[in-house]
Amino acid sequence: MSQPETTWFTEEHESSGSSIGFRTRERLHAEKTPFQSIEIHDSTDWGKLMVIDGCMMLTTRDNFLYHEMMSHPALFTHARAKRVVIIGGGDCGTLREVLRHEEVEKAVQVEIDERVTRLAEKYFPELCEANDDPRAELLFDDGIKYMADCEPESVDVVIVDSTDPVGPAEGLFNAAFYSSCFKALRPGGIFVQQSESPLAHLQLIKSMRAAMRTAGFQAVRTLTFPQPCYPTGWWSATMARKGADLSGFRERGAQTKQFETRYYNAEIHKAALSMPEFMRRELGE
Amino acid sequence: MSQPETTWFTEEHESSGSSIGFRTRERLHAEKTPFQSIEIHDSTDWGKLMVIDGCMMLTTRDNFLYHEMMSHPALFTHARAKRVVIIGGGDCGTLREVLRHEEVEKAVQVEIDERVTRLAEKYFPELCEANDDPRAELLFDDGIKYMADCEPESVDVVIVDSTDPVGPAEGLFNAAFYSSCFKALRPGGIFVQQSESPLAHLQLIKSMRAAMRTAGFQAVRTLTFPQPCYPTGWWSATMARKGADLSGFRERGAQTKQFETRYYNAEIHKAALSMPEFMRRELGE
Repeated sequence: MSQPETTWFTEEHESSGSSIGFRTRERLHAEKTPFQSIEIHDSTDWGKLMVIDGCMMLTTRDNFLYHEMMSHPALFTHARAKRVVIIGGGDCGTLREVLRHEEVEKAVQVEIDERVTRLAEKYFPELCEANDDPRAELLFDDGIKYMADCEPESVDVVIVDSTDPVGPAEGLFNAAFYSSCFKALRPGGIFVQQSESPLAHLQLIKSMRAAMRTAGFQAVRTLTFPQPCYPTGWWSATMARKGADLSGFRERGAQTKQFETRYYNAEIHKAALSMPEFMRRELGE
Repeated sequence: MSQPETTWFTEEHESSGSSIGFRTRERLHAEKTPFQSIEIHDSTDWGKLMVIDGCMMLTTRDNFLYHEMMSHPALFTHARAKRVVIIGGGDCGTLREVLRHEEVEKAVQVEIDERVTRLAEKYFPELCEANDDPRAELLFDDGIKYMADCEPESVDVVIVDSTDPVGPAEGLFNAAFYSSCFKALRPGGIFVQQSESPLAHLQLIKSMRAAMRTAGFQAVRTLTFPQPCYPTGWWSATMARKGADLSGFRERGAQTKQFETRYYNAEIHKAALSMPEFMRRELGE
């Protein structure tokens, strides 16, 4: 039998002058939603790819890195996160990781584009396996408005799992949004947001951290992790905490966790918070 | 003035089904040496690129990650490395990092292809700034033969900074070569070798580790670090030690080092040794 023809889907990242691609067999889906364009490709080695507005969002094979690091460090830092809000996160992979934590009583996912979730259900069903959990609530709405209207001091952890700070996600990267999140959080509450590549977007990370402090957060820390499908292959998330520090975490809890992970563990938690020299110098720590 | 035309140099990595590229202005050089083909490209955002047999070897902008992690963890683990041998490493970046350590009395670089070094001198002069150090010796010879002929117990650290395990570097990834290195090392001596991507080449890492133990090394540890220009953007080095363990390092020495680094520090040393769950499971640690 002849091999089906392959091609490459490549994202050329203009601002960093670098590109990342995956060998693909076929484009399975393409549509324009009211918010963005979404494509699904089938790759030879990385499972399915989801591409939004030309940017690689996730692959079946490497999304565990991002989803675990967007959820477990924050949840093992909080003493007992009962109520979690995820802004964005339409592929539901972060929601799944959050719901692995028994202490979570309610996790609300506020994704602006319902089509992201519907396509994830079809092409990334493993990421959606917790969608029917009675603790999960899936809203399709504007996350900025949701956080602005949120009851004060009602949330323990806010996770911002968004696209890049252009287009629909732009308003998620400023002090006004951070202020809404700060108000919505209970004391000791944790905010965590994907914060792009330490190598390509260090100035963005720096301004995000400053805006988080402006919004009232007492402690801010940036963690890094590998992510092959994102520009430079190295990514970050930035955590901020209301009225408490971020110097420790429930290390024993992470060591004895009752669920499986593929990247995260207690050692990796500490490792991710270790700051390379160039970041330390630029971020002033 | 009109912008000079740009294009992209892309390495399509067949075995992992992924590609990495950089936007380039022009190809500055191309030649076929007796060992391999070498190209130099000028990129818009990553400085110069060196490409060997179609594989990206280094960029001006991101090589600090690799070179620091190939040298400082081993040298801050050894109590006092006086004599260091670098196999490969023709761009001289590892040699430069090694010679930042005052305790090093002699560093021999054994590169099979002199043209790599000559092109590095021209296009990456900053990496070659220690080549005139009286402690440096640059040989252009076969590293396998060099290690086989090396006086027993005469070396403190061997660093294998080679291309992928195909072509001229193939013989650097097996127990016979590791045995030569083991014999050449003094007790407590450390061997460290680049060991490809934890995501794309985990079985290679596993077999390297087994072969190092077969060769007699008492302790083996793999460290990971980001490296945007290599497949998956995430890379590793594997350290092995003769007659001593690899559980600690000169942490105080790393904290008070008298030279600048851009990635490495004492925290990053520990972080790099932290093993993600999937690696721990596969490597049996």
